[in-house]
Amino acid sequence: MNVEILSIGTEILLGDIVNTNAAFLSRRLAAMGMNLYRQSVVGDNLGRVVEAISESFSRADMIITTGGLGPTEDDLTKEAVAKYFGLKMILDEKSAEALRMFFEKLGRPMTENNMRQAYFPEGSVIVKNGRGTAPACIVEKDGKVIIVLPGPPREMSYVFENEIEPYLSRYTDSVIKSLTLKMFGIGESKMEDSVKDLISGYSNPTIAPYAKTGECELRISAKAASEEEALALIKPVESEIRHRLGEYIYGKDSDSLASVLIDKLNEKKITFASAESCTGGMISSMITSVAGSSDVFAGGIIAYSNDVKIGILRVNPVTIEKYGAVSEECAAEMCAGCAQLFSVDASFAVTGIAGPGGGSVEKPVGTVCFGFYYKGDIKTVKMHFGGDREIVRIRSAMFVLDALRKGADIL
Amino acid sequence: MNVEILSIGTEILLGDIVNTNAAFLSRRLAAMGMNLYRQSVVGDNLGRVVEAISESFSRADMIITTGGLGPTEDDLTKEAVAKYFGLKMILDEKSAEALRMFFEKLGRPMTENNMRQAYFPEGSVIVKNGRGTAPACIVEKDGKVIIVLPGPPREMSYVFENEIEPYLSRYTDSVIKSLTLKMFGIGESKMEDSVKDLISGYSNPTIAPYAKTGECELRISAKAASEEEALALIKPVESEIRHRLGEYIYGKDSDSLASVLIDKLNEKKITFASAESCTGGMISSMITSVAGSSDVFAGGIIAYSNDVKIGILRVNPVTIEKYGAVSEECAAEMCAGCAQLFSVDASFAVTGIAGPGGGSVEKPVGTVCFGFYYKGDIKTVKMHFGGDREIVRIRSAMFVLDALRKGADIL
Repeated sequence: MNVEILSIGTEILLGDIVNTNAAFLSRRLAAMGMNLYRQSVVGDNLGRVVEAISESFSRADMIITTGGLGPTEDDLTKEAVAKYFGLKMILDEKSAEALRMFFEKLGRPMTENNMRQAYFPEGSVIVKNGRGTAPACIVEKDGKVIIVLPGPPREMSYVFENEIEPYLSRYTDSVIKSLTLKMFGIGESKMEDSVKDLISGYSNPTIAPYAKTGECELRISAKAASEEEALALIKPVESEIRHRLGEYIYGKDSDSLASVLIDKLNEKKITFASAESCTGGMISSMITSVAGSSDVFAGGIIAYSNDVKIGILRVNPVTIEKYGAVSEECAAEMCAGCAQLFSVDASFAVTGIAGPGGGSVEKPVGTVCFGFYYKGDIKTVKMHFGGDREIVRIRSAMFVLDALRKGADIL
Repeated sequence: MNVEILSIGTEILLGDIVNTNAAFLSRRLAAMGMNLYRQSVVGDNLGRVVEAISESFSRADMIITTGGLGPTEDDLTKEAVAKYFGLKMILDEKSAEALRMFFEKLGRPMTENNMRQAYFPEGSVIVKNGRGTAPACIVEKDGKVIIVLPGPPREMSYVFENEIEPYLSRYTDSVIKSLTLKMFGIGESKMEDSVKDLISGYSNPTIAPYAKTGECELRISAKAASEEEALALIKPVESEIRHRLGEYIYGKDSDSLASVLIDKLNEKKITFASAESCTGGMISSMITSVAGSSDVFAGGIIAYSNDVKIGILRVNPVTIEKYGAVSEECAAEMCAGCAQLFSVDASFAVTGIAGPGGGSVEKPVGTVCFGFYYKGDIKTVKMHFGGDREIVRIRSAMFVLDALRKGADIL
């Protein structure tokens, strides 16, 4: 069964609202194994809505619309459906009575246009809206199905989950399961190159690459008659991908670099602390965004000025004079001082030039030095990152989280 | 000129990402006075992209696409454009050289598929991408125009604002100028209610409300023959809005709460430092994301554990025992200790329960205490924020930045 989503509302075309309804419905349809090849948005104009319905039905057997069910003159989705199928609009007495009671309970007079919400194309299945005054409806005719849902996301999602999903189950005999493998330290193109043969060789499960700032992922999706069968299809593909790209894979699904790190340190009962200069608290913020981080993360120092590096982290002023604040030598002393100050097993330090100013020939913008301390041992590394101030900071942060996670593996 | 937006990407059809690109472009096109009657989304499939282009051109003279410009086999928007117009794909030597340099600088070998980003439909105007490796392009043929933009929102918005908006001005005989007034401490509906008469009373300039996490804004857009005339239309409306909502307005256009704060403290030469518990570095990270913050921001302590509050910030253990770590008393001692440690004029402290665990009847999740220190004076306040862990942290962070900004006004 091919489905299309048609969102109706001039406010979407003006960019006043983001079309989250389409994303919600798409995710649910994918999970049910229904094929969605198109989303469309059209404004509150009868002719253009009828045209859009007609176009969608030339490609698909089912349309799900959102929006245009309210009481105003602009709300004309049901009229457009009636016009497309050549049906009359009929008053539904039950819906009319519910509307009258709603306004009575509210103690407000009901204006005449509210009654528009009780008219439906002849032969509609009327679907109650547990979160609003406008009922939804389903029209089936000539082998085509159109499901007409309200626009407000709270109402739409409620009606979909409670009334439409059960209705749709008759159209699918399969389930879709997905597994997302998350990677760091490899570019999207190299990742894809490594599994090109799998991507083109498999059609079930499918394998799709995605990229985000600094990291990338492969999503494996299988369609089968049962959840177990779908998972069984995913398993060998996952193994093969892990075999090829395992060194970059840090987690799956909702894992983040920070959550994986916190899990590992919690497991090994390693406490740690941070000393951040150019990242200015970003790494600590990522760490503390994970619930449960307080069991292993003691805290940190944002050592933005040299005075703080010297006065609080006990960096030797001579080190800064000789090598500069952005140096592996300074990073080493920062993480050592940090570990001592917080009395923890491990610590990290970041000092770099995020830009836009502050760069030089030897140390251009993007130069970042890192120090890692673990029970007396110190390792340092210098990196060069491209991008603007925010990107340099994000890349530095992810580099630290990944290095700590790998370190925790070894310990 | 009628325009359509065509977003390309299977991840949108799977509901993995929300199509914010379409909302951004729609808003900008509306502001330029261009007519947009349709948004469409289609997956990464050559045939279906060509079909969607062909359908859009049957209704409109211009298409703006987003997505499908990356290095992978899935990225085929330019191929689809070439196929639709019957054009060859040509290597652009300048783009190829830029790609080679990018990978050389990164110190990574360039895989062959990366070079796909340097191929364009013959006769394209190639548009540089200041925030990514994939250039955009414009193809004009037979009275039709297609503008091909990258998918990542950071890249897309940058290219649109810097390269495409100036290009599009030839299709409109007027100039559009906009001014965005940014507000904190007022809800969207109350903001809208306060200027309802202006919103409905004016058609040029238009006034549109927008909401983000914790803040909201009004965008005033005027259309006129010249920039001066447009600005003259905006001026009286701006004054009226400032008259009504001035207490909430913290800045305009690209200002953020942090950038406005840093500007004020720089002007008054007030140095400051941070002591963060539940926000875990988030506020310091927002502050240090502003270039130039190092002139006034000395650094901070992430005092996640009680040991750190006591050992480093010199909070009296009796205070914690008596009032708890989440108390105004503790916040007061934290900010005093912080100011002393960093030898600064001002400091702030945040200690709260972000959740999901840790709440109690007297101190439910969302309880956050703040301390503000300025040259010996200390003020404290207790707040309750709704929302999940991340929302509580963000609201706490914005509350601090706004309080400091207002404090700096008074000093």
